[in-house]
Amino acid sequence: MGKARGELGCACHFDKLGQEVYLSMSIAQVQLIPDGSITSTPGFEAAGIACGLKPNGALDLALVYSPQPCVGAALFTTNAFKAAPVLYDQRLLAQNATELHGVVINSGCANACTGERGLRNAEATAAAAAGLLGRSPSSFLVMSTGVIGMALPMDKVLAGIAQAVSRRTSSVEGGHAAALAIMTTDTRPKECAVRVITDYGEFTIAGMAKGAGMIHPNMATMLCLLTSDVRITPQVARQALNEGVEKSFHRITVDGDTSTNDTVLLLANGLAKMPPITSTESRGYADFCVGLSQVLLTLAQAIVRDGEGATRFVEITVSGARTGAEAKQVAMAIARSLLVKTAIYGQDANWGRIVCAVGYSGVTIIPERVRVWLGDLELFRNGEPYQVDEARARELLAEPEVVIRVDLGQGSAQETVWTCDLSHRYVDINAHYRT
Amino acid sequence: MGKARGELGCACHFDKLGQEVYLSMSIAQVQLIPDGSITSTPGFEAAGIACGLKPNGALDLALVYSPQPCVGAALFTTNAFKAAPVLYDQRLLAQNATELHGVVINSGCANACTGERGLRNAEATAAAAAGLLGRSPSSFLVMSTGVIGMALPMDKVLAGIAQAVSRRTSSVEGGHAAALAIMTTDTRPKECAVRVITDYGEFTIAGMAKGAGMIHPNMATMLCLLTSDVRITPQVARQALNEGVEKSFHRITVDGDTSTNDTVLLLANGLAKMPPITSTESRGYADFCVGLSQVLLTLAQAIVRDGEGATRFVEITVSGARTGAEAKQVAMAIARSLLVKTAIYGQDANWGRIVCAVGYSGVTIIPERVRVWLGDLELFRNGEPYQVDEARARELLAEPEVVIRVDLGQGSAQETVWTCDLSHRYVDINAHYRT
Repeated sequence: MGKARGELGCACHFDKLGQEVYLSMSIAQVQLIPDGSITSTPGFEAAGIACGLKPNGALDLALVYSPQPCVGAALFTTNAFKAAPVLYDQRLLAQNATELHGVVINSGCANACTGERGLRNAEATAAAAAGLLGRSPSSFLVMSTGVIGMALPMDKVLAGIAQAVSRRTSSVEGGHAAALAIMTTDTRPKECAVRVITDYGEFTIAGMAKGAGMIHPNMATMLCLLTSDVRITPQVARQALNEGVEKSFHRITVDGDTSTNDTVLLLANGLAKMPPITSTESRGYADFCVGLSQVLLTLAQAIVRDGEGATRFVEITVSGARTGAEAKQVAMAIARSLLVKTAIYGQDANWGRIVCAVGYSGVTIIPERVRVWLGDLELFRNGEPYQVDEARARELLAEPEVVIRVDLGQGSAQETVWTCDLSHRYVDINAHYRT
Repeated sequence: MGKARGELGCACHFDKLGQEVYLSMSIAQVQLIPDGSITSTPGFEAAGIACGLKPNGALDLALVYSPQPCVGAALFTTNAFKAAPVLYDQRLLAQNATELHGVVINSGCANACTGERGLRNAEATAAAAAGLLGRSPSSFLVMSTGVIGMALPMDKVLAGIAQAVSRRTSSVEGGHAAALAIMTTDTRPKECAVRVITDYGEFTIAGMAKGAGMIHPNMATMLCLLTSDVRITPQVARQALNEGVEKSFHRITVDGDTSTNDTVLLLANGLAKMPPITSTESRGYADFCVGLSQVLLTLAQAIVRDGEGATRFVEITVSGARTGAEAKQVAMAIARSLLVKTAIYGQDANWGRIVCAVGYSGVTIIPERVRVWLGDLELFRNGEPYQVDEARARELLAEPEVVIRVDLGQGSAQETVWTCDLSHRYVDINAHYRT
């Protein structure tokens, strides 16, 4: 199994760990599928086409389809202003989580803050795809991303759906095109697929995602679609998704904003030859979670790597906390700090800003016990600066991946989060997004 | 009374309200003192000198002195990593809040995260000034701002104190020099002085402050010194300071970071001919609060106007909330949003980002009831975009002051906060602060 598509977060992550095969708690093997896409999962077809939603003519509408009915599970934004596709999907999944056939995803227009008309447009989008494929309207979900407050140009969307239906393919290229079509300010597609090999059978989990701004826990302008051929019930799929997202998408931040459209959706068609996973006690549950977490973590990290204007990928680990929640709270305070993020952009080993963020995180801190490292270089302990090797610090900060570790000296809990630096380019991108 | 020093937040604020004389709830008048400084208060002397803490030779050490013993009251950063001067002042004020004679403030070095040595240096700074002026060491406070984790170069500081003591003056210029000496990335000094005229006597309140990054509620790398000749007890002074800061410094944000050194200190020498303010029921309490609030609000807004890289001053009012706390929470979510701040920088009427921030503020929102205005231009209601006059929106966003109003449609509580936009210059300033 060779390394594939080095520009993707997927391959980077695998490179970083220095291995391409994971061992789960059981004897299952999780193998990366090189050049994988959403259609690496048997039984799924996809297309990505351009229907004019993006003014520059780029791909802007994706269709993912499974002739076999799928179980669905999803997590949505916590924003009070939920976009029409989010409201539509939430209602649909409450009624039908076992007979789903696909999803239509458009970029270029978020269909958010669009009132009743927006809901009707979401319904019409699903119904159009379902109709062309001879399925019930309630078997199709929708996702949208792009500018808020603009009505979907339905003439373009409907023409696009027809085109996507006719071009859909189960080849890996169909998935790659879909991954391109959901991008907004992303500079590259985010895809990952793994094969889980166990003594009771094999199954696949594949995913694609888009970022790249408004990325913050509880999701953001972030869409993620996962396909699998695992046999699973909707309740258990939802549980696995919750666990996986908590350790991946809820551990990343780009700019602290949480959008109206965030969705993580899993569709599982049950084609794999394996015993069904009907509870968290089922034999396959742990293996499914390991594979799913790997795909989710890879996609989440790929979003941060491609954060708007990002020049550095930053991993922040807080150890020695009394609880995992406190460790995460401190880590996120550092990850959110504009001063830390701009210092990293400027390759300035300004550990004072890290310590400062620890101090205002809201967690009770014992200052004299806190230690801070940049990579393997200790920067701070005993409440005062360690003799910092500034030359070594500059070397470490010149790397594309920056690792910060903080030990609170109060317990044994540890958590890791990921973010990126804050650059001039972030300001460029967001000062003129609509224009 | 003419307009003075238009470049200061003080004058701007007065201009904006279109009047220069305030009426408090009583018959007291609050008059702006043109070209006022910290020494506009009778009985205070000040100096600002350069002792080499700033490599560029700019003023970097301020002394404020009152021969008459002062009552002191202060608020400090909530950051767990409190800088040495904060720890020193907290301990000192707990023992002596009635026999204070002054404060030494340095820029260029925060004396933060400097351990025991930092505390000794803070003590030595206070003792040096006190000794030269023939006062008890415990009658002097200290403040520092600048780089974290660097020890105070005490040779320079001690030489600087001697110079400041010899140059101190009760003229307004002494105060102006002090205001310059406490600046870090500030581009201009922040000063304000008012005279409160009542039927039972007159008194003065004067202040100076410095920003300009790490500005966020619960203070930040923000120092503010206030002088007054009011007769007041420490407890009541503290209460008035709490109330004033809650409506001013706790209502501003530049970048969401909260520093190790923030201090707001009030010194009152009691020279005014007026009955003493010994409780919140005392006749002068309300008048003192009105004057103090005016000075604090002017200085707080001046900090935002001079926020790192700021090109726009942004006022955000949230009305129709169930409680004031909820109104403030929503307003601060908007004020903190990088996407809102970059859109304002780009003069993009991206109301979707405002609505989005309202939605993730954590306050329970009824989306259909939310209305959003930019100045007098309605942007959003009934859960969908209002017919936006984009040309007018661009005009409003081209102004140096941008006013955003959000009505939640759920109650009658209202709060206002202030922030600035996020520009390329912010990134410039913070990517290379130490170097």
